[in-house]
Amino acid sequence: MNALFYAVPAAALLALFFAWFFFRQMMKESEGTVTMKEIAQYVREGAMAYLKQQYKVVTVVFIILALFFAVLAYGFGIQNPWVPFAFLTGGFFSGLAGFIGMKTATYASARTANATMRSLNSGLKIAFRSGAVMGLTVVGLGLLDISIWWVVLNAFVDNPDASQKLVVITTTMLTFGMGASTQALFARVGGGIYTKAADVGADIVGKVEQDIPEDDPRNPATIADNVGDNVGDVAGMGADLYESYCGSILATMALGASAFFGDTALQMKAIIAPMMIAAVGVVLSVVGIFAVRTKEGAGLKQLLGSLSLGTNLSAALIAVLTFAIFRLLGFQHWWQLSLSVLSGLLSGVIIGKATEYYTSHSYKPTRKLAESAQTGSATVIISGVGLGMISTAIPVVTIAIAILLAYGFATGFCFEPSQLGHGLYGISIAAVGMLSTLGITLATDAYGPIADNAGGNAQMSELDPSVREKTDVLDALGNTTAATGKGFAIGSAALTALALLASYIEEIKIGFGHLAEKGGDMAAQFAELSRASIPDIVAHYNITLMNPVVLVGVFIGAMMAFLFCGMTMNAVGRAAQKMVVEVRRQFREIAGILEGKQRPDYTSCVRISTRAAQHEMVIPSLLAIAVPVLVGILLGPAGVVGLLSGGLGAGFVLAIFLANSGGAWDNAKKYVEEGNFGGKNSSSHKATIVGDTVGDPFKDTSGPSLNILIKLMSMVSIVMAGLTVLLHI
Amino acid sequence: MNALFYAVPAAALLALFFAWFFFRQMMKESEGTVTMKEIAQYVREGAMAYLKQQYKVVTVVFIILALFFAVLAYGFGIQNPWVPFAFLTGGFFSGLAGFIGMKTATYASARTANATMRSLNSGLKIAFRSGAVMGLTVVGLGLLDISIWWVVLNAFVDNPDASQKLVVITTTMLTFGMGASTQALFARVGGGIYTKAADVGADIVGKVEQDIPEDDPRNPATIADNVGDNVGDVAGMGADLYESYCGSILATMALGASAFFGDTALQMKAIIAPMMIAAVGVVLSVVGIFAVRTKEGAGLKQLLGSLSLGTNLSAALIAVLTFAIFRLLGFQHWWQLSLSVLSGLLSGVIIGKATEYYTSHSYKPTRKLAESAQTGSATVIISGVGLGMISTAIPVVTIAIAILLAYGFATGFCFEPSQLGHGLYGISIAAVGMLSTLGITLATDAYGPIADNAGGNAQMSELDPSVREKTDVLDALGNTTAATGKGFAIGSAALTALALLASYIEEIKIGFGHLAEKGGDMAAQFAELSRASIPDIVAHYNITLMNPVVLVGVFIGAMMAFLFCGMTMNAVGRAAQKMVVEVRRQFREIAGILEGKQRPDYTSCVRISTRAAQHEMVIPSLLAIAVPVLVGILLGPAGVVGLLSGGLGAGFVLAIFLANSGGAWDNAKKYVEEGNFGGKNSSSHKATIVGDTVGDPFKDTSGPSLNILIKLMSMVSIVMAGLTVLLHI
Repeated sequence: MNALFYAVPAAALLALFFAWFFFRQMMKESEGTVTMKEIAQYVREGAMAYLKQQYKVVTVVFIILALFFAVLAYGFGIQNPWVPFAFLTGGFFSGLAGFIGMKTATYASARTANATMRSLNSGLKIAFRSGAVMGLTVVGLGLLDISIWWVVLNAFVDNPDASQKLVVITTTMLTFGMGASTQALFARVGGGIYTKAADVGADIVGKVEQDIPEDDPRNPATIADNVGDNVGDVAGMGADLYESYCGSILATMALGASAFFGDTALQMKAIIAPMMIAAVGVVLSVVGIFAVRTKEGAGLKQLLGSLSLGTNLSAALIAVLTFAIFRLLGFQHWWQLSLSVLSGLLSGVIIGKATEYYTSHSYKPTRKLAESAQTGSATVIISGVGLGMISTAIPVVTIAIAILLAYGFATGFCFEPSQLGHGLYGISIAAVGMLSTLGITLATDAYGPIADNAGGNAQMSELDPSVREKTDVLDALGNTTAATGKGFAIGSAALTALALLASYIEEIKIGFGHLAEKGGDMAAQFAELSRASIPDIVAHYNITLMNPVVLVGVFIGAMMAFLFCGMTMNAVGRAAQKMVVEVRRQFREIAGILEGKQRPDYTSCVRISTRAAQHEMVIPSLLAIAVPVLVGILLGPAGVVGLLSGGLGAGFVLAIFLANSGGAWDNAKKYVEEGNFGGKNSSSHKATIVGDTVGDPFKDTSGPSLNILIKLMSMVSIVMAGLTVLLHI
Repeated sequence: MNALFYAVPAAALLALFFAWFFFRQMMKESEGTVTMKEIAQYVREGAMAYLKQQYKVVTVVFIILALFFAVLAYGFGIQNPWVPFAFLTGGFFSGLAGFIGMKTATYASARTANATMRSLNSGLKIAFRSGAVMGLTVVGLGLLDISIWWVVLNAFVDNPDASQKLVVITTTMLTFGMGASTQALFARVGGGIYTKAADVGADIVGKVEQDIPEDDPRNPATIADNVGDNVGDVAGMGADLYESYCGSILATMALGASAFFGDTALQMKAIIAPMMIAAVGVVLSVVGIFAVRTKEGAGLKQLLGSLSLGTNLSAALIAVLTFAIFRLLGFQHWWQLSLSVLSGLLSGVIIGKATEYYTSHSYKPTRKLAESAQTGSATVIISGVGLGMISTAIPVVTIAIAILLAYGFATGFCFEPSQLGHGLYGISIAAVGMLSTLGITLATDAYGPIADNAGGNAQMSELDPSVREKTDVLDALGNTTAATGKGFAIGSAALTALALLASYIEEIKIGFGHLAEKGGDMAAQFAELSRASIPDIVAHYNITLMNPVVLVGVFIGAMMAFLFCGMTMNAVGRAAQKMVVEVRRQFREIAGILEGKQRPDYTSCVRISTRAAQHEMVIPSLLAIAVPVLVGILLGPAGVVGLLSGGLGAGFVLAIFLANSGGAWDNAKKYVEEGNFGGKNSSSHKATIVGDTVGDPFKDTSGPSLNILIKLMSMVSIVMAGLTVLLHI
């Protein structure tokens, strides 16, 4: 094993150490007044109670799936014996990352509110460093899990062919990616339904019908809403990005092992490279996090500058250091591969800027959207849908160029099938580059919900309105700086999904290997197929766009993206309706709520969200697992590749549309609230609230789940490849 | 030439004769009172004025494109010399079909209203037979254009190789399909923007703000709204289905010529078969139209039964007669090919039923949607989006099965590349079967807007409310019977688009033929490629899903569907806002409008819609033409096939989603109006009106344009294949 590898577990421990360090620092702060503590405790308990419920459901699913894999592995011998265990650890660590992030967030919100009373800067520091706990936990646990499996499998996998051994190890490790994806999907869908049911319900009755402000303690759904921010935006996001981070590294390792098959030394370098880039990214993230510091009494502009400095610094440094890493590892084409990574990084920055352009009310599109509110909620919805759909153009064209560049640099711009492996490696390593500084970019992302919750705490504790204003500023700050991180996350998801497509073909070959081992008449032929190149397998299964089976797969893949979104959207709609009915009931039946004389019944609302999330997350999530299995069984590898491509194409674009429509509606509302087109409580304002409410499940439930759906379908296909091969020889 | 061919022009003339006959019959009826005539005249003039404007813009586009093709053909010799002319006639006939349909509709509406005063049955007869004028005009002109070009090209195309000659003729004829698609896209987009700007504007101020009913003469936008129904729903639909009808026949002819290459007799049969099926379909349509007759004083149920009888009879007969046609033509696998057609027909029926299930308020989904209105417009929008997305599952799975069956029957379920040509021919001929009875299915579709306009006329002429109630019944009847026709249209679009993908590869080969003719060093190699099989070309350009260029194409194709929808959606949003501002202004500034003492200024609203449609239709339509050209130039055939597949996959699903969400919102509103969840003027009703208004551009502008977009992109790619080949050898 390459000695440089030990930098990887070291970086993992470094990340976890600083996560612990920042957590301790945050815990030393005061939680403020008795009411503040009480409310924080309420939210904390609600969040933990929900997470426990969710993990119970997920555990059942994991046990069933692990048993299924065990049967495939030990019963039929068409699966690697390590798979069930790898699958379980992936799920466990992904869930743990979400759990720690959420725990931190629920401890941090009241502390942030309390610190904000002192100064904006103090609030920023607590919220941001608490976000950093999550960022560093995600990357730390991710690299730790990867390191452990790398060491274990190197020690135990028994294969006389050293080159083949590396392929088996890396593709086995992909299964732990499937565990992470499964956990992430449940977390995103469950959390997303929870939070948006509460949010939509609270907004409809509170803001639209009763004209009371957000997070008002008189609103019975307000605690559920704040709990939701934690289980959806924090825990869901943590599991999601854990999955993205590990997925990109694992896919690149697998591609490296196959692209340089036959040359063990080069294979090893190609496997170590993504881990090294990630390890260096951890160090840069820590540096970046410490770079976010301002003087006491700093103004808004300085705070923004400070945050941007942190993220930009680490992104710029990783771009430079990538050259050094490839050089150090002794790659012949070191600077070309580095340019592949650079293409990825640049595309992420552009996607981030485009997202900002379309969703921030500093720019024309969202202002025009706010303007359309003057003619009512129908035009707000139509214009918002239009805006979101149009906004898909720049990201897609950008990622298309990035794909061609990343592939091109890695292959000397030769698009012949013979260069496929190298090109795909270039695409995949670009995704790793984009996610390497996740430690800090996730901090800027997770910090938003913490500031948001701090505002909720301030409002419910009836602190001076100036506190809420300041936390709103912090929240807005976070939205701006999070753009780049989100661009990286979106772009890398597309690149990783592409890479997984190739890994699927690799796994098909391993499937043939298993068949060959079992002997029989065709053993020699199977053995030959197990050593074939990707283009050979593509030809064997006729995976061209003229094969109707492939095209049928494309149709079903595109449909899956919509079906999945529709199901999660409806889940939110149904749950929100229940919430509205309950909140209306309380206002009607419990005297004195609206006058603030009587506490509403918060727990009944918490219960509605919890139940809805638990029930409604199961079917869409299982569908994401079942459909690729079914398509594999019925249509074979040609259908599966069609399914994954169609799902990737339609899902990627749909996800951007949903995210940007939702974001623009949110900010159009804020723009009106700032006094434009009639300002607060005008008819324009009501119209934008409808837009914002519709946008909630778009941007926080269905949209973010899509990226996981795409990758989970790939992961499932990869893990099930053995069975597919058995049925379609 | 096969003697059976002469049945085709004969059928065309038969269709046109009966179209003329029904038109004369309708014109003999009275237009009713002076006011009714006046209003009908208003609408007629507005519609004609708009259509003239639209045709002006379109003419400019056509002249430029025809010149461009002339340069490619005569200047560079990489295009067939007949292409510019074929392109122009396709556009001309498509526009003519829309024009005649619209002219008929504008004459029929007042007459329908007047006849309805006598009895429901009389109204049905006039409206339905006027719809039949359009149906028969579309199929008549389509078959006429096809017949003329078939005769002309057979006489003039000069190719020593008889088999090659048939390939050249049929692929040249595809260019007239591009003319039809271009015209259809402009008609759908322009008409769609016109009608929905007026409709949305009228609804927002009239229904939501002022509480006056639909089509109230006090509403300044009401004439524009009625004009819009004619230019969008009638003229747009006519051009659209002309394109679908011809496209499916032409694609099948081209595939037949290539699938049976080398055996001229068989080729000829395969070319004649789709024309024959269409010709028989014309006769069956006429039979079906005459079968729609009821006794004077017939009730609703009898009328519905009568309409269903007509459409079902002709659909059932074509299924049976297809067997006879293939037998008569002497196909060896006659019954297998007939089963391919049957698969298509059945899938159309299932898609129609599924559409009905999701959008009719007789079923649970739309009722649940109406229920969600009790908690406000936001939940209506969320639930409607969810419903539409979920509703994509059944149609996609159905069409997937139909593709596999149609392909399978035609190839004996052999999915090897060698059988590709036969399989694709099976898919394509299935689409022809679905559209063969368009004469009558389009009648049931076009009859809806006529009944709707009759209602508008009745309302504006202040006839007894019972007349409006009866026309509403007629309209609702039409919606139910139109479902099957719509299912056929959607399903056949997907199948035809698949067939066009294969035609593209054929055209690539012809491009190599042109290059070979020009001589040079590589002439021999080009000549060889021009005789290669589809799988050979696929291998030559590496059109597999592992080629990043193909995947980039898939991304861009999926994005195009969204971008195009976003642009048309925004166009409606912007125009509707202008309309709202104008209508509000009139209510404010012109005294006595709301009291009915003063006529509003209808023409200013007509002007807003006309201008908006004219300006806003150009960019999205040109984009649909420019993007495939650019992708071809930059990425070559691999990129183009990716683009078309991605566009097809995402576009097809997106189109179903938009159509069904829109339809369900419309009917949810009607369900509430029938007295459920609070009934008319309740808060639930207002919420459903918002849903209906949002659904307007979904179902009538963006959604229907998508099917044309997909096919136009294919057609453009086919026509530009010569240039693409020149740049990417």
